[in-house]
Amino acid sequence: MTSNRITLISLSVADIARSRAFYETLGWVPEAVLENGVFYAMAGQKMMLYRREKLAKDLGRAPETLGTGAMTLAQNFPTTQETDAAYAAAISAGATGLSVPQKVFWGGYSGVYADPDGHLWEVAMNPFWELDDRGLLA
Amino acid sequence: MTSNRITLISLSVADIARSRAFYETLGWVPEAVLENGVFYAMAGQKMMLYRREKLAKDLGRAPETLGTGAMTLAQNFPTTQETDAAYAAAISAGATGLSVPQKVFWGGYSGVYADPDGHLWEVAMNPFWELDDRGLLA
Repeated sequence: MTSNRITLISLSVADIARSRAFYETLGWVPEAVLENGVFYAMAGQKMMLYRREKLAKDLGRAPETLGTGAMTLAQNFPTTQETDAAYAAAISAGATGLSVPQKVFWGGYSGVYADPDGHLWEVAMNPFWELDDRGLLA
Repeated sequence: MTSNRITLISLSVADIARSRAFYETLGWVPEAVLENGVFYAMAGQKMMLYRREKLAKDLGRAPETLGTGAMTLAQNFPTTQETDAAYAAAISAGATGLSVPQKVFWGGYSGVYADPDGHLWEVAMNPFWELDDRGLLA
């Protein structure tokens, strides 16, 4: 079994209903809704939204010590138009814009927004990366 | 193209050499090494270690405002023994232990450690989740 793998990405959220509304407005389809979290199935892994107080308790830390922003999650798109549309949809769903999609130094086209809890998402078109039909890296 | 997808997970790091040593000691195999970052290919997506100052600059924020800890990444294993071994390997490679692998409330077996920059990794055996040969969720 390779070490190069991640099976679960958990984002701590202050208000599950608010976060579900945000992600599901963007088209994420929930797989299972539990008392303290929601799972979204992806290819070979899952994303979870998890109550912030619960994560803090699991970690034995105070909720206010859990920060955000030193990590980004990204969705790549085949075209700049789809990148713009994804960014606009996020802003419309309540995201905070950090940078409007634009040409960037590495040769692609990229924008960044923060979700309702400050988790950072990049939307990008990378001319050097090929996507398969499912939108995964080929 | 489904919304349920993530193509890139970027972890900001203070010292790329230190972080490469940590992850590569744990068996991660780099795909490309660039000036400000390193890519690790996974199934359909990539993980990147990216210089903290560079991410801060990209975001227009001060590096010290980029926090960690409100998100976890997880690797699942088929057995508690492999979970213990993964945790021990991480500690041996310089991780900070947050909780030694143990039976947890949701019915599985789980431990949490922090990488050299404070990014949180869970190692777990989940009896309700099936893994394929690649270690991805079946």
